[in-house]
Amino acid sequence: MLREVKVGIIGFGTVGSGVAACLQENIEVIERRTGVKPVLTGISDIDITTPRSVNVPKEILTTDSDALIDKVDVVVELVGGTGCAKEFIIKALKKGKPVVTANKALLAEYGEELFSVAEKSKADIYYEASVAGGIPIIKILREGLVGNKIERILGILNGTCNYILTKMEKENTSFSAVLKEAQKLGYAETDPMLDIEGTDTAHKAAILSSLAYGQWFGLKPIYVQGIGGIRLEDLKYASELGYKIKLLAVIKQENDDVQIRVHPTLVAEDTLLANVSDVFNAAMVKGQPVGEMLYYGRGAGRNPTASAVVADLVDVSLNLKYGSHRRVPAFRIGKQFRNLIPMNEIRTRYYLRIQVVDKPGVIARIATVLGNRGISMSSMLQRERQSSENVNLLVVTHTAREKDICDAVADMEAFDCVKDKIVFIRIEDI
Amino acid sequence: MLREVKVGIIGFGTVGSGVAACLQENIEVIERRTGVKPVLTGISDIDITTPRSVNVPKEILTTDSDALIDKVDVVVELVGGTGCAKEFIIKALKKGKPVVTANKALLAEYGEELFSVAEKSKADIYYEASVAGGIPIIKILREGLVGNKIERILGILNGTCNYILTKMEKENTSFSAVLKEAQKLGYAETDPMLDIEGTDTAHKAAILSSLAYGQWFGLKPIYVQGIGGIRLEDLKYASELGYKIKLLAVIKQENDDVQIRVHPTLVAEDTLLANVSDVFNAAMVKGQPVGEMLYYGRGAGRNPTASAVVADLVDVSLNLKYGSHRRVPAFRIGKQFRNLIPMNEIRTRYYLRIQVVDKPGVIARIATVLGNRGISMSSMLQRERQSSENVNLLVVTHTAREKDICDAVADMEAFDCVKDKIVFIRIEDI
Repeated sequence: MLREVKVGIIGFGTVGSGVAACLQENIEVIERRTGVKPVLTGISDIDITTPRSVNVPKEILTTDSDALIDKVDVVVELVGGTGCAKEFIIKALKKGKPVVTANKALLAEYGEELFSVAEKSKADIYYEASVAGGIPIIKILREGLVGNKIERILGILNGTCNYILTKMEKENTSFSAVLKEAQKLGYAETDPMLDIEGTDTAHKAAILSSLAYGQWFGLKPIYVQGIGGIRLEDLKYASELGYKIKLLAVIKQENDDVQIRVHPTLVAEDTLLANVSDVFNAAMVKGQPVGEMLYYGRGAGRNPTASAVVADLVDVSLNLKYGSHRRVPAFRIGKQFRNLIPMNEIRTRYYLRIQVVDKPGVIARIATVLGNRGISMSSMLQRERQSSENVNLLVVTHTAREKDICDAVADMEAFDCVKDKIVFIRIEDI
Repeated sequence: MLREVKVGIIGFGTVGSGVAACLQENIEVIERRTGVKPVLTGISDIDITTPRSVNVPKEILTTDSDALIDKVDVVVELVGGTGCAKEFIIKALKKGKPVVTANKALLAEYGEELFSVAEKSKADIYYEASVAGGIPIIKILREGLVGNKIERILGILNGTCNYILTKMEKENTSFSAVLKEAQKLGYAETDPMLDIEGTDTAHKAAILSSLAYGQWFGLKPIYVQGIGGIRLEDLKYASELGYKIKLLAVIKQENDDVQIRVHPTLVAEDTLLANVSDVFNAAMVKGQPVGEMLYYGRGAGRNPTASAVVADLVDVSLNLKYGSHRRVPAFRIGKQFRNLIPMNEIRTRYYLRIQVVDKPGVIARIATVLGNRGISMSSMLQRERQSSENVNLLVVTHTAREKDICDAVADMEAFDCVKDKIVFIRIEDI
């Protein structure tokens, strides 16, 4: 028997319009496939007059979100941010109304609180759209891979950053020039700092790592470095060495501990991950027993996000139909606490670009510092001098400890023969 | 509250051992994540004495599958084939016991019957492991992308074929040499015909297309061509033209109709799909509104298949816990019948390799035939003669109708100047 479910959307922006359009266009196919019918019965926004990319009956528009929450079966929060969005969600949950949200910032910062309210109210909270919109990665982790221990997740989770890095490399352009273009095209926000400083990726890393390891890590302990410092020459040198540079979320189990970090990363160019270009997202997941997998798709934007929200709406509707609320809980704390490995203690390989004065003895001094810190080089390359009297010395290390690298960098930066800051970028072997 | 569910496995082969091992090793994490505990309480097989790759208590082994079905809550069918496996499944379903199966051949041939028995008995039948074991593609299609119209699925769904094609290309070896090696390594069955003739891929295409379009297509109407006819020289020429050859399942909507076909296919080498190598599987899915996505992972073998079976066991267990049986039905017929486009009527681009006598006027004759059949060339390449008096003429066409290509091939094969059969391979533009 068909079950109709009244859906209310709070926030009638790009994504809200996409959800409304998807429900209009695909409702028949959803109904036939699932036996439930999520019917859009209300949309609230502070602005209900500006024309949107979708036509909805005027009578379902309201500025009164509280009234909307009262009259629907499920609330879709698409306001974004950590302000009133949180209030709306808590209000809905406390009334026992299930919530679907795309709000990664809110979940990363207040997930634990929201999930606890949801648990007390026995209401569902679904959030597929919060990470890599077009890729059902939350469902994959919570259900499709539920029998696996998760050994590693490597994620390209921010389309703007991936677009910028791809363009810089393909078109030989500087970071700032590409950023301006991306803003013109609407790929990057007017204030793109959340993206390019890596915070957005860290929000998503917080969500994925918590799901993978049953421990709420939150945002604070995650090491985050954005792509603002990536120079065109580093992309070129990386390419000569057989790598591409991607902003990666690195989530990894190491014995009983976990590392979670977000930073630009060298990835071997012949891997699928390195070939995820433009605005696309991807998550490479290694599970035991499933092995290595990769999921690729659009991470953001009206339509991919709408697809995720509607899938959640169907899950919530099915739970309402079958009385199976919280069948797949929003988040469950595991028994085994896993400690986060402090950034100083992580071990990986590194790419170093050291600008040095082109004089005899310089390479020997660099090599000595690295050796003294127990860092072994897998390759060293000195580029021919181009204009100034400085040359770029490129070093790729074997696995080393972060603290040793940082100390060695500090040692070297104190040398007269070393000019400018040393650039070091972590390498992830796949 | 934790719900324990008694699991019985019928068929203690490679996959059965993998499922038992996964339940042993990961049961704690599964329990913590889900609140259900699938407990392996029985395994039946005709051989219960040969040592397996996993240790299970002797007392849970039996040769009596009927008795096993009676005493468990859920039956995992891992016998394979279309014989007694079908009987076991029907017996279990009729007793109201949910079934998890990895049996693609059985589903492709008798899916409609099995699903109807399941519907009458109100019992779940889950089959994630039947297509691309390590990739939760069934869950993705039925749940993660449930709000989408599916425009296209391109699948590399048989690891053996992909391994053979990859090895031929990388190691410059003939089909038969690689096949022998694959058999030695255990990647190919002793009787590999199901794989290399494309039947296994067609089984999976039948399942995916039916899920995508809500119409049970079955195996019979699917056009199937294996990789037995692929010559090393075609891989090389394809590479010169910028393509790789993959055995693809092509499932596509065209207006209100659908095409489903399995055959070797040229795929542009700079796409992710072309770079899916060795035994890996991938499915590229294009949905509306989600856009293009790619899912990549191991398609078969003990561990990836076990991951899929255990995920299904959790879904079944949750349904038992919440009384939400058939929450996501095994398969639902849609209202809109979609016709299968006859193979003769499909339109795509083609690669032709024509062995011709190296004489004046030959190219003109070939070009004339193609022109008369309304086939337009996008490129033509005549290779320099190597040993014999024949040369390979390579033609890449613009979009043409299959029937016109077949007719043109027949016309040309009747020429004196054309030696041997003409090789034609379809191209898929991504």
